Parts: sequence; structure tokens; C-alpha cells
Amino acid sequence: MSIKEMIREHPQVGADFNEQLAEAVKHAMYCAAICNSCADACSAEEMDMRRCIRLCSDCSDICTATYRVATRRTSGDVKVIEAMLRTCITACEACADECGKHDNDHCRRCAKMCRECADDCRKALESMLEHA
Amino acid sequence: MSIKEMIREHPQVGADFNEQLAEAVKHAMYCAAICNSCADACSAEEMDMRRCIRLCSDCSDICTATYRVATRRTSGDVKVIEAMLRTCITACEACADECGKHDNDHCRRCAKMCRECADDCRKALESMLEHA
Amino acid sequence: MSIKEMIREHPQVGADFNEQLAEAVKHAMYCAAICNSCADACSAEEMDMRRCIRLCSDCSDICTATYRVATRRTSGDVKVIEAMLRTCITACEACADECGKHDNDHCRRCAKMCRECADDCRKALESMLEHA
Amino acid sequence: MSIKEMIREHPQVGADFNEQLAEAVKHAMYCAAICNSCADACSAEEMDMRRCIRLCSDCSDICTATYRVATRRTSGDVKVIEAMLRTCITACEACADECGKHDNDHCRRCAKMCRECADDCRKALESMLEHA
Repeated sequence: MSIKEMIREHPQVGADFNEQLAEAVKHAMYCAAICNSCADACSAEEMDMRRCIRLCSDCSDICTATYRVATRRTSGDVKVIEAMLRTCITACEACADECGKHDNDHCRRCAKMCRECADDCRKALESMLEHA
Repeated sequence: MSIKEMIREHPQVGADFNEQLAEAVKHAMYCAAICNSCADACSAEEMDMRRCIRLCSDCSDICTATYRVATRRTSGDVKVIEAMLRTCITACEACADECGKHDNDHCRRCAKMCRECADDCRKALESMLEHA
Repeated sequence: MSIKEMIREHPQVGADFNEQLAEAVKHAMYCAAICNSCADACSAEEMDMRRCIRLCSDCSDICTATYRVATRRTSGDVKVIEAMLRTCITACEACADECGKHDNDHCRRCAKMCRECADDCRKALESMLEHA
Repeated sequence: MSIKEMIREHPQVGADFNEQLAEAVKHAMYCAAICNSCADACSAEEMDMRRCIRLCSDCSDICTATYRVATRRTSGDVKVIEAMLRTCITACEACADECGKHDNDHCRRCAKMCRECADDCRKALESMLEHA
């Protein structure tokens, strides 16, 4: 049940395995799930959470695209992955800022997840620029 | 980074937490990611893997919808979750059967993941029917 | 910009083109987009729309999986498409029932779209069972 | 069945309707569907289409995220939409360049669709920067 091991088993990967990028894939996968759950939990709260629903929904969609694209290893598509990682950082930071304002467990967990995901995308981006 | 804990923090869950359904969510999330990776890895193999690409792509899309829908806890939507779990079992079994025919690490891992996901969806479905 | 013509151009389709299934693909694609928009518009309304947000979000995810899976024509995957069409009918009917209760333009449009999508999925299912 | 009319019916839109952004939403929705179909059709071709499968799959995932995020109008999220539009242009151009190399109807249609989608995202981006 390890997406990182799965990527390593791709026929074109082998020694070329990028640990930072695989870590970003794993966390973007989790962040997509956590943000989807937070959007739903926010809509069940009593206070006005509409901005939080919006940013969690956007972040979930963007993390889903990010982890799916960054997982693929057939015939390198570096420029697209880099662009997607940059957008993912923007979406995760916006979502973390908003969730960070709310005093409930699901928003606290979501804000933490988004910050970790943004950090991992940044490290993945740096490792890709170094290898270019 | 736990999607199961996240679901427990939903304002309408609390004592109503369904462990089997949360386990199905977690594994469908992983299965979506593993199948997406397997479709890509299959397309890079030398032999004819087109049927495997097809079934992995379908299973990834269906697991994504399953985990997203089954995560939500606002104003119960039991009939839709049950229908989605049934379709997920069908897709996972079809994908596991096909991946099970191929002698490479990514297909073996994917087949195993799909079987686990189908099992968890079956258990979640049983637990929901018991509670109905 | 026609998804139906696109499916007809698949190398394994030709004379086998299923008009009803292609129509279901087209409408599920639209329904995914309309429901995604309705969930967002509902979250901006003043009254309590949480059940509508939930059902629109679920229906959007399920229509997305449905149209993506039902589009594919490589190495037939009839059982999975049939299961997905059935689940799509369930999700569209649940969403249409809920949106039908609300007096605003986006919910009216969404309810109409969901009913059309459910009808098309039913016709596609019948045409597949006839050809089996 | 018009996603553009749907966006206009959002309670926070009204006079603020951005025609260029709505056009980008519509074409990204179509491009997501066309690229998903092209990836499948490519996998059924006899020649080596693996790079095309890869780029179509990436472009489909990115267009899906783009149209879903750019559809939403609750509590403005301009920076995230702009970042997503930029990534969508990159993905569509990469996919159009690759599909443009192949002599078959589905790749020709997909290349045309991707170029139109990139153009619309560029115009949407310009209109957003003008309004900022």
C-alpha cells in the first residue's frame, strides 16, 4: 500500500527514483483526501465557513491533479510537473491560511496537512531544478 | 495525515463513526493512486498491456469517486454510498483479475491493492446494511 | 469540440458506435460540471443548503467517473460500465430530488440536468443489455 | 446544459460575470473529456503512442482541476485560479505539440482542442489581470 514503492517499480525509473518527488506525490494524495473531507465537515458547521469550503474544494482538486501527474514516469514531462507543483504550493498555502483561522479539529488537521504538502512540493521542485 | 481521524472529527460523526467505512475510504484512496501509477507503468512496458491500462484507468477513476463520496458525512447519503461501493467492488475485481496475469512488480502490487480494496468495500457495505 | 465524434474516431469503434452510450457520456460530462457549480453556488446562498452541497458534490464526482469510464473503448469493459451507469442513475436522482426543492435558478438548472443525465444513463444501460 | 449560464446564476456573480473566464471553463471541461478519450484511443493504436498517452492523461487531469476551480465563484480565489490557468496552458501546449505529430483523427481533434483551450486560458488570464 505504498505509492512510493509503486513509483520505484515503474520500468523507466530504477536508479532515477526521485525521493523528494515521490514524497510530494504521497502527501498531495493525502492532502486531496483531507481537503475533500474538510470541505464537507465545514459545510456541516454552524458558523459561516463558505470561504473555507471554497478553498478546501479547490485545494482538493488541485492536489488530485498534482499527485496523478507527478506519479507518472513514462516519457518525462518535467515542465508540466513543475508547473503543477507551483500551482499546488499556491493552493495549499491559500487553504492553510484560511483553515488556520478556524478553531476546530478538522480545520487544524487540514491546515497542517496543507503546509506539509506545500513544503514537500517546494522540495520536489528544488530537486527537479537541480537535476535539470 | 490520517484520513480516518479526519472523518472522526466531522461535526456530525462522533459516536456514529463507522470503522469499516473509514477503512474502505482509506484503501480506495490508496487504490486510486496505485491504479493510476500502474496504468502509467503498463504503458511503458514492452508487451501489449492495453487491457491492463484500460482496467487500471477505470479502477482509478472509480476508486477516486468512491473515496470522495464515502468520506462525506453531512446529511447522510446512504443509498449513493452503497451504490458506489458496489461499483467499486466490480471495478477492483476486474482490475485485480487482469493485473494478476502479468509478471511484473507493479501489476502484482496493484492486483493485491485492488483485492484489499474490494474486501474493504464489501465489509463497509455489510456494516452499512446492518446499521440500516 | 464533440466528445461523441471523438469516441467514434477510436480505432476499435467504427461500426460498433453506441449512440445511446455516447449521449450518456456527453450528458454525464455536463452534469459533472453543473453539479460542481451548483455545490459552489449553494454554499454562497443565505439559507441552509448543506444537504444540497453534499448531494451535488457526490453527483459531480460520480458523473466524472461515469463519463471517463464510459468514454473508453479499448478492450471492452462492459460490466464495469454497467455498474457505473447504475450508480450514476442513483446519484443523479438523489441530487435532482434535493435540488428540485429549492427556489433558485442554479438548483432548477441542476435538477433538470440530473434528470436528463439519469434518463440517458438508463437508455445507455438498456442499449448495452440488448447488445449483450 | 450550459455551464456558462450556470455560472451566471451564482448568487455572487450577476454583473461581475467574466465572459472570458466562463469560456475557459467550458473549453477546459471539453478538453478534459477529449484528452481522456485520446489517451484511451492512443493505447489502442498499433504504433508506439506512450508519450501521447502520458501527455493526454496529464492534460485531462489538469483540465479537470482547472475547470472545477475556475467555475467556483464563492469568496474570490483569484491567485489560485490564475496559477491553475498558467499550468493549464503549459499542459495543453505540451499535449497539442505531441498529438500534432500523429496522423490519426483522434490526435488531430485533440491537438485542435488543446490549442483552443490554451488560447482561452490565456484570454481568461489577461481579463483577470486587467480587472485586478
